[in-house]
This record gives sequence, C-alpha cells and structure tokens, in this order.
Amino acid sequence: MLVGAIEAGGTKFIVAIANENGEVVEQITIPTRTPNETMKEVRSLFERYEIKRIGIGSFGPINVNPESEKFGELLSTPKIEWVGFNIVSYLKRYFNIPIKVDTDVNVAALAEVRYGAAKDVSSCVYLTIGTGIGGGAYLDGKLIHGIGHPEMGHINVKRHPQDGFEGICPYHKDCFEGLASGPAIEARFNQSAKDLPDDHIAWEIESHYIAEALINYILILAPERIVLGGGVSKKTHLIPLVRKKVKERLNGYIQSDKLEKIDEYIVYTGLNDLAGLYGAIALALEE
Amino acid sequence: MLVGAIEAGGTKFIVAIANENGEVVEQITIPTRTPNETMKEVRSLFERYEIKRIGIGSFGPINVNPESEKFGELLSTPKIEWVGFNIVSYLKRYFNIPIKVDTDVNVAALAEVRYGAAKDVSSCVYLTIGTGIGGGAYLDGKLIHGIGHPEMGHINVKRHPQDGFEGICPYHKDCFEGLASGPAIEARFNQSAKDLPDDHIAWEIESHYIAEALINYILILAPERIVLGGGVSKKTHLIPLVRKKVKERLNGYIQSDKLEKIDEYIVYTGLNDLAGLYGAIALALEE
Repeated sequence: MLVGAIEAGGTKFIVAIANENGEVVEQITIPTRTPNETMKEVRSLFERYEIKRIGIGSFGPINVNPESEKFGELLSTPKIEWVGFNIVSYLKRYFNIPIKVDTDVNVAALAEVRYGAAKDVSSCVYLTIGTGIGGGAYLDGKLIHGIGHPEMGHINVKRHPQDGFEGICPYHKDCFEGLASGPAIEARFNQSAKDLPDDHIAWEIESHYIAEALINYILILAPERIVLGGGVSKKTHLIPLVRKKVKERLNGYIQSDKLEKIDEYIVYTGLNDLAGLYGAIALALEE
Repeated sequence: MLVGAIEAGGTKFIVAIANENGEVVEQITIPTRTPNETMKEVRSLFERYEIKRIGIGSFGPINVNPESEKFGELLSTPKIEWVGFNIVSYLKRYFNIPIKVDTDVNVAALAEVRYGAAKDVSSCVYLTIGTGIGGGAYLDGKLIHGIGHPEMGHINVKRHPQDGFEGICPYHKDCFEGLASGPAIEARFNQSAKDLPDDHIAWEIESHYIAEALINYILILAPERIVLGGGVSKKTHLIPLVRKKVKERLNGYIQSDKLEKIDEYIVYTGLNDLAGLYGAIALALEE
C-alpha cells in the first residue's frame, strides 16, 4: 500500500509517497507560494501513484477537528494567502480517499514514537525550537486535541533572574516563544544565535527557559520522553544544560526510572528536519 | 450492578456503594488513621453488599500504572504510615473483582465529565485549590498518564509584579502550589484566607497565579472546560477575576467558540466536595 504525505510549512512543502512500512518512495520539496500554485504540484506527484490515504502535518493554526465542517481550514496564519484555505477539502476534490490532518508538531511527536527517538516508549512530547517554538504530544495512543490543538510554545515561563529582555511574541510579548525562539535570542544580543559562542550567557538564559517549559510539560503531561528539534536545538551543548536544570528544578519530586535517566529522557530528534514529513506518513498509516 | 468506591484522602476516607447509574446507595466517612485500621472499616462496608468492581481515587503520589507490580502503592506521601502501603493488593486479598485506582484529581476530572460541571463536553481539566493544589485531566476518553500521573499543582508560574513572597512548597518554593495554596495565602498575609475581604490585594495576586496556571493548561492540553474545586475556589468573587485575566492574557491567540464563552469555560465544580468520591464511582463503572 502507498500513501501520500505532506509536511506543509510556511516556507516550503515537503511532499512524499511512502509505503506501508513508512519508507519513502519519492520525495519532493516545493516552495510555499499561493495555495493553488503549491497544491497543483502536490497533486501532480500524488496523481502519479495509486495512493490509498493522505496524511498532512501542517503549519497552523488549523482546524483539526474531523467533526467540524471547517476541518482542514487554515486559520489566522501570517501567510495571508493561506488564511481560510482548506487543504482537506481541496484534496478531497481530486482524491476520494481518507485524508487526515494535524499540526506539524503533533505529527512529529507521533513520528518520533513510530520511527524516531521515542521508538522504545509509547508517549512523547516533541518540541521544535527555531524561528518559532511549537510542541506536540502523543499520549495514550492519541495526539492531543480538545479545543483545537495545543500551542505549547506560548506558555508562561518564569523569568531568568538576569534577563530583562521584553520579549518579541506579537500576542504575549514574553511567553516562552517570545523569550526563547531563535529570533528572540538574536533580538536580545544583536547577534545571530548560530554565532554566539558556547560559553555566552545567551545559552545559560536559553537553557533556563527551555528547562522551565519542559518542567511544565512534564508536570502536566507526564510524557515518557521529550524530543527536541528545530534549529536552536542543533547547538550540541544546549541539551546537556537543559537536562541539568530540569533535574535540579524538579528536585526529585516525580519518582520515575525514566526521569532518573535524564540523558535518555530529554533527547535530540531522531528524524532531524524530517520529523514533520515522517509524521505525515505515520498519520496516514494510523488506523 | 453495585460497585464500591473510595475517595482516599490524607485526613479522611469517603467510602460508598453505588449502582450502575452512579447513584450512591450508602456512604460513610472514616478518619484516616493507620492503613489497617482505616481499611478494616472500608472492608466491612464493602462486605455487606455484592459489589462487582471497586474504584479508588487516592491521595498521592501513588503508582497508577496497571502494568507495574507496584500498582496501587503509595509513594512518598507525608502520611508516613501509608508510605509503601498498597491499597490495591490489600483489597485484592478480600475481593476477587476488578479494582481500579487513580489520583483523586484525575478521577475528579472524570466525574465532572460524567456527572458534574462538564457533562455537556467530553474533556476537562479539574483543579482543586485548597490546602494543596492538584489537577487532573480527562482527554480523548482517557485520564492522563505517562510516567506516573500529572502533578499540575507544581508547575512554574510567572510572578505577580507586586508579589515578593518566597513561596512555601517544600520541593520547589515558589511553584504554583507554593504561591497560591490556602496555606500560601495565609503565610503571605498572616491571616486566614477565609477572612480576607473581597477587595484585598490577596485576591488580585491569587487570581493572577490561578490565571497563569490555567493558561498553561489551556495551551498544553486544550481542554474543552476547566473545573475548579477546593476550599479557595469557594470564594465566589475569585473565579470571575480569573476568567478576566485568562481572557486578557490569551489575547485572542486561540480561536475557539468554547473559550470565547469564558463564563462557561472556567466554572466551579458541579460536585462540590464529592468530586473525588463520584470520580471513584465513575472509575469503577468505566469500561
């Protein structure tokens, strides 16, 4: 069986055909232009195969409630040409097969459990820290939904005592994303995050905010693993700093073998920049 | 069909027999003494009926993993006589029927969906604010688990700008519980929370911390409703203050009809001080 998969992002779409083992048969990358231009290229790939299902991991916010008549509709995204575009109903016109959609970070959490860094456990939180910060959770066999999808990147975090930066989130100023995204680091220090040396105070502050957020995810969701992706997480000295702070701050409060082994509990993505694409494949293949 | 239900608390056990509609047939309250003394009274009530299942909502931390050999064992609770006591294996010796256990707050979330203030929706977060602060979540047909159970009362919250109180949580000092439990209010103002007038700054500060916590629960779990219980939540002017702050701080970021109607979104418990007991009943009756 073959499935079609789309990781729909604000700058590019990664589109693939995969088999029932999640192996990619063909994969293309398309720059995100207007919905019609971009989706036409998606269609032409999909039409060359006999696909049985489609899975989509999308940028958001997007309506992910299958019972809503607006299921698949993009909401208040900054990509204005896409506001109100319904990716599911568009594809339904051409492909009369099951189509599933969820957020890029929610499907990435699923992908890490199925194929990536959380393969040996059954639940995880996936967090991407880059241009923005977003998180998804796969728990008890399901991706988390309720009123829409989680927006874990925008939670409150406790201030680092030496950080007076006002934050750059247009909605909340100094929420997690407003204080710790790549652009926030750069705005705070007038320097690209990539160029900041490992011993710069930026990383003490950054690891503080990531640890504060992870602690809240742990206390609220109790996942079996936390997987970090995105550009900022590529700084190899960062995750060890985060682990140390999470352990100190939790202070033995939660007794868990898994949490004790903190090096295996907070880990780097096993799928690099393809967590979203593999998530879309995994979503298509889910029962 | 009859079931046995226990709300196991640190100061008292509420024990009941209920029918398949969740209606209580007989109910007793027992002070929490030693495990043997207390459990003997539980047994003598249960033995007078032909019960088919037992549900328990317990104080914690407690092992709630049915696959663990320590399922039902109380962990590092301050009630030292109960540390290491296994409530499930104790009852199994006398009753050869299915026995389920979860935390008091997790089952309370279930109870609010089945019988209480969240009857018209399918997911909720239940938060009790009293001597301690604890939260549970019922989402997508399941209570949240992973590595143990959530400890939502101990999350980080952003400081109120006028609050310099150091916090009283023995584990984390100024986590949510450390800053906003009943005893924290009293320690901050040297006055019983009950006696503080409605226009006291205490309630501005308290509603700030509750709102900060609820915002994090909303962004991480996206529940369809939030139900508040516990002694502090009985202050009738408090919930309206919390609603206002949640709405201001989210700033329209999450688009949801449910969240728009904030008076129906953040509500007082429908089961008063019996949410835990009804949760134990609901847990016993779950498939």
